[in-house]
Amino acid sequence: MAYNLLRGKKGIIFGALDEKSIAWKTAQRCKAEGAELVLTNAPIALRMGTINQLAEEVNAPVIPADVTVTADIENLFTQAQEHFGGKIDFVLHSIGMSINVRKGVHYTENNYDFTHKGMDISALSLHRILQVAMKQDAISEWGSVIALTYIAAQRVFPDYNDMADNKAMLESIARNFGYQYGVKKNVRINTISQSPTRTTAGSGVKGFDGFVDFAEKMSPLGNANADQCADYCVTLFSDLTRMVTMQNLFHDGGFSFTGVTQAIIDQMGK
Amino acid sequence: MAYNLLRGKKGIIFGALDEKSIAWKTAQRCKAEGAELVLTNAPIALRMGTINQLAEEVNAPVIPADVTVTADIENLFTQAQEHFGGKIDFVLHSIGMSINVRKGVHYTENNYDFTHKGMDISALSLHRILQVAMKQDAISEWGSVIALTYIAAQRVFPDYNDMADNKAMLESIARNFGYQYGVKKNVRINTISQSPTRTTAGSGVKGFDGFVDFAEKMSPLGNANADQCADYCVTLFSDLTRMVTMQNLFHDGGFSFTGVTQAIIDQMGK
Amino acid sequence: MAYNLLRGKKGIIFGALDEKSIAWKTAQRCKAEGAELVLTNAPIALRMGTINQLAEEVNAPVIPADVTVTADIENLFTQAQEHFGGKIDFVLHSIGMSINVRKGVHYTENNYDFTHKGMDISALSLHRILQVAMKQDAISEWGSVIALTYIAAQRVFPDYNDMADNKAMLESIARNFGYQYGVKKNVRINTISQSPTRTTAGSGVKGFDGFVDFAEKMSPLGNANADQCADYCVTLFSDLTRMVTMQNLFHDGGFSFTGVTQAIIDQMGK
Amino acid sequence: MAYNLLRGKKGIIFGALDEKSIAWKTAQRCKAEGAELVLTNAPIALRMGTINQLAEEVNAPVIPADVTVTADIENLFTQAQEHFGGKIDFVLHSIGMSINVRKGVHYTENNYDFTHKGMDISALSLHRILQVAMKQDAISEWGSVIALTYIAAQRVFPDYNDMADNKAMLESIARNFGYQYGVKKNVRINTISQSPTRTTAGSGVKGFDGFVDFAEKMSPLGNANADQCADYCVTLFSDLTRMVTMQNLFHDGGFSFTGVTQAIIDQMGK
Repeated sequence: MAYNLLRGKKGIIFGALDEKSIAWKTAQRCKAEGAELVLTNAPIALRMGTINQLAEEVNAPVIPADVTVTADIENLFTQAQEHFGGKIDFVLHSIGMSINVRKGVHYTENNYDFTHKGMDISALSLHRILQVAMKQDAISEWGSVIALTYIAAQRVFPDYNDMADNKAMLESIARNFGYQYGVKKNVRINTISQSPTRTTAGSGVKGFDGFVDFAEKMSPLGNANADQCADYCVTLFSDLTRMVTMQNLFHDGGFSFTGVTQAIIDQMGK
Repeated sequence: MAYNLLRGKKGIIFGALDEKSIAWKTAQRCKAEGAELVLTNAPIALRMGTINQLAEEVNAPVIPADVTVTADIENLFTQAQEHFGGKIDFVLHSIGMSINVRKGVHYTENNYDFTHKGMDISALSLHRILQVAMKQDAISEWGSVIALTYIAAQRVFPDYNDMADNKAMLESIARNFGYQYGVKKNVRINTISQSPTRTTAGSGVKGFDGFVDFAEKMSPLGNANADQCADYCVTLFSDLTRMVTMQNLFHDGGFSFTGVTQAIIDQMGK
Repeated sequence: MAYNLLRGKKGIIFGALDEKSIAWKTAQRCKAEGAELVLTNAPIALRMGTINQLAEEVNAPVIPADVTVTADIENLFTQAQEHFGGKIDFVLHSIGMSINVRKGVHYTENNYDFTHKGMDISALSLHRILQVAMKQDAISEWGSVIALTYIAAQRVFPDYNDMADNKAMLESIARNFGYQYGVKKNVRINTISQSPTRTTAGSGVKGFDGFVDFAEKMSPLGNANADQCADYCVTLFSDLTRMVTMQNLFHDGGFSFTGVTQAIIDQMGK
Repeated sequence: MAYNLLRGKKGIIFGALDEKSIAWKTAQRCKAEGAELVLTNAPIALRMGTINQLAEEVNAPVIPADVTVTADIENLFTQAQEHFGGKIDFVLHSIGMSINVRKGVHYTENNYDFTHKGMDISALSLHRILQVAMKQDAISEWGSVIALTYIAAQRVFPDYNDMADNKAMLESIARNFGYQYGVKKNVRINTISQSPTRTTAGSGVKGFDGFVDFAEKMSPLGNANADQCADYCVTLFSDLTRMVTMQNLFHDGGFSFTGVTQAIIDQMGK
């Protein structure tokens, strides 16, 4: 079901790796709602994933960009504006990677070169994108930027490792740049804190399955899936949510404000 | 501009007093988005306001109900379901009143009979509505309930008086009943924490004008108005936000996460 | 071990029922730290409990007071000041009761007469105490007031029933009166959000044991006990924490900021 | 006035630059409460400040350490344990620096080399300290670690620049390492979110004076000063707060939970 909520809007989607990606589903939903798109990802992710299939489906160019390289972002925004013949209305930042997680380094033993690299990719990338966009004046008045995050930024989930700190920084950047871009151009910036989702990236986290199961039992509506997250993104890119900014929005079936459920209490008795 | 976001949905709107009311604007927007409506308010508010004009415009019956009287709520839900020929998909709770505020009783000197009465109207009313709805199984699976609230539930705004405590309790009820109704029927319940809005009700608060001016200067996007709040309600009543529940959602131009703005700092130097 | 942290200070302790009570332990610790005390509780609680034993131990008068009756509170503060020959430096509010809980009425079916009564006892009582204290100018400059609360005010614990709403209101009152009393007399007011504690009152909550076990497994340091809570109260009554006010302070072994623990994940696999 | 609250305890204090420093005051208060100390700071800060004066006063060795260099931290903890003849009971982290702030680079134009360097000093330094301490098993069971932070981690204060993001990351590290060290050794880790304080470091922030004035008017008890912060640290290093961990504790005269004050409203009318 589509509503033309994004008719005439132009957006850039970061981070569609494969068909399990939230960014992939969001691109599909945005297209269905009438948006024109540009897709982007890191060169290595472009090779590993299947983004060309999505590009064809949503009729969008793929412009490679390493989010840790300012020149790449500049090129992306320049080309995207040329492609659209105008400014960008919305941006999805669905990017995160921790080398400490990948290499199985325990949080208490983190390698700080890895930490810096992960922070650069997962958090500072949002600042870099926004800095370039602001310099190029590339985002329309009342444009909307969303970055995906996780509740580990508020509470400890031990296996999430240094991604928790990265997400805390990401949310802070969204807030702080949200102020600046709001005052200057009425651009709004929010984060969506999504249920744990069985994407290719998510599955890389140690103990992910037990963890998804816990979240499912702890959420009155169950875990939100990638399709539902895409739906929610659409509302936040639309003109119906113009005064929502600098927020961290939980999209999680109620997990974040549930202290315990009967299902968990029952499990404790076993 | 309309999108048919609520096509086929049926909703009850509490609290449309006159054309400045957020509930009034929300009724108009819901109608424009394809919803069928029932309007309700307390008998005295029906006499004082101009709801019949709205009723005609959105083609909805007006069913009086005092939210402190269970039988009234029961009658409302029964009649609404008869009118619709089916269950209710969404409910807007835009109700609040403090006798201590009305009578100009300072917070530190509150009269507790007034406090109980205000709490009954402003907070317990949501519980009562939900209790009746659940008993009658009157809300559809994945239905959506919104109650309007204010940031005084989190931080002190001295002139807001005991409405601050009422709103804290209201948000708690939304959360707790949100759990129960979520587990049972996947009904979602949220509160929207709205910028101070120049409604007839809002204007009754002492020092309201200076206060709206402060909020305007403290919000990167300025204060959200009633029309924009109505837009936001539409997204939360729609099927695109099904996994958002038990949340308090700030709709305030960024006020809630702004510590200070340049505009305020400039004012401090005067 | 004692430090004379409260030497010369005078305090009123509400809510010491029996030797398991947090208020009981706090009275003992305050006495050990050099404070003089007045004990109080509702007449029925005085009869049911063993407070005279405590009164003898800490050499304090017991002044009965029903916290829902203003005249009782007035009498209490008048007599306490006469007893001390001066103003009160600190107050502990350890009071809570839900008739819906006692009668086993499910949250979704709450009886609103019970709700009002529970709210009056559990939340408004703090307002009433502070209103009387302010009218009598009974609390010293930089005095300290603490009310005990529970994290159900922030997140849903289904069996906690309407006490969750009462605690949300209690915390709001602490915040709002904290502003007023702070501006006027530099009196500070905070709440302590304590781990579930095996007191006589706590044990009345349905499913309390399974719940304490869950909290224990979910807290990196385990649940905080009543003795430790008493220690924490002492620091907040002391002169070392004068600028802490209007806060809700978690005293819970880390529960509040833990999303999941390895112990819980292990339990999920069973 | 002293209470012997830290009798027999041994602590390391990071970041005492000169007599205005919170770390300086904290060292004095800890000494007065019976603690033995080791002082440390970066070599350049040791040259610029007057720490030797403090060292003499509190009878503590000064061990230089650059917190971005693991070997320096290792040496510090090794030497400190040798000096004390045993483990460390408490640590104060009062460290922060942003090159973007120093060089006057606007937040939206941040230089990312500067950002990384600032993050390394201001946030990752806490992780580094804790990693070394854990590897050396240098902190006693129930030891206490405090890092100083600022409310810009929660809400935007535009001139605070990228220190806001650094503080968000610092608080996240405190939480996450707090879990790990809590589970392993019952060590507790908290942050204190302090009022803006006229230290030599604080004064480096653009517009600091106007900002301190705003905070003063916005705090029911006024801004907390450095001496009061030192008092608060003492309570958190003591054995009376053993179950407080993973918390961000506001020490700010009520600023954090105040939405507006009469003093600010009056100023708005000018």
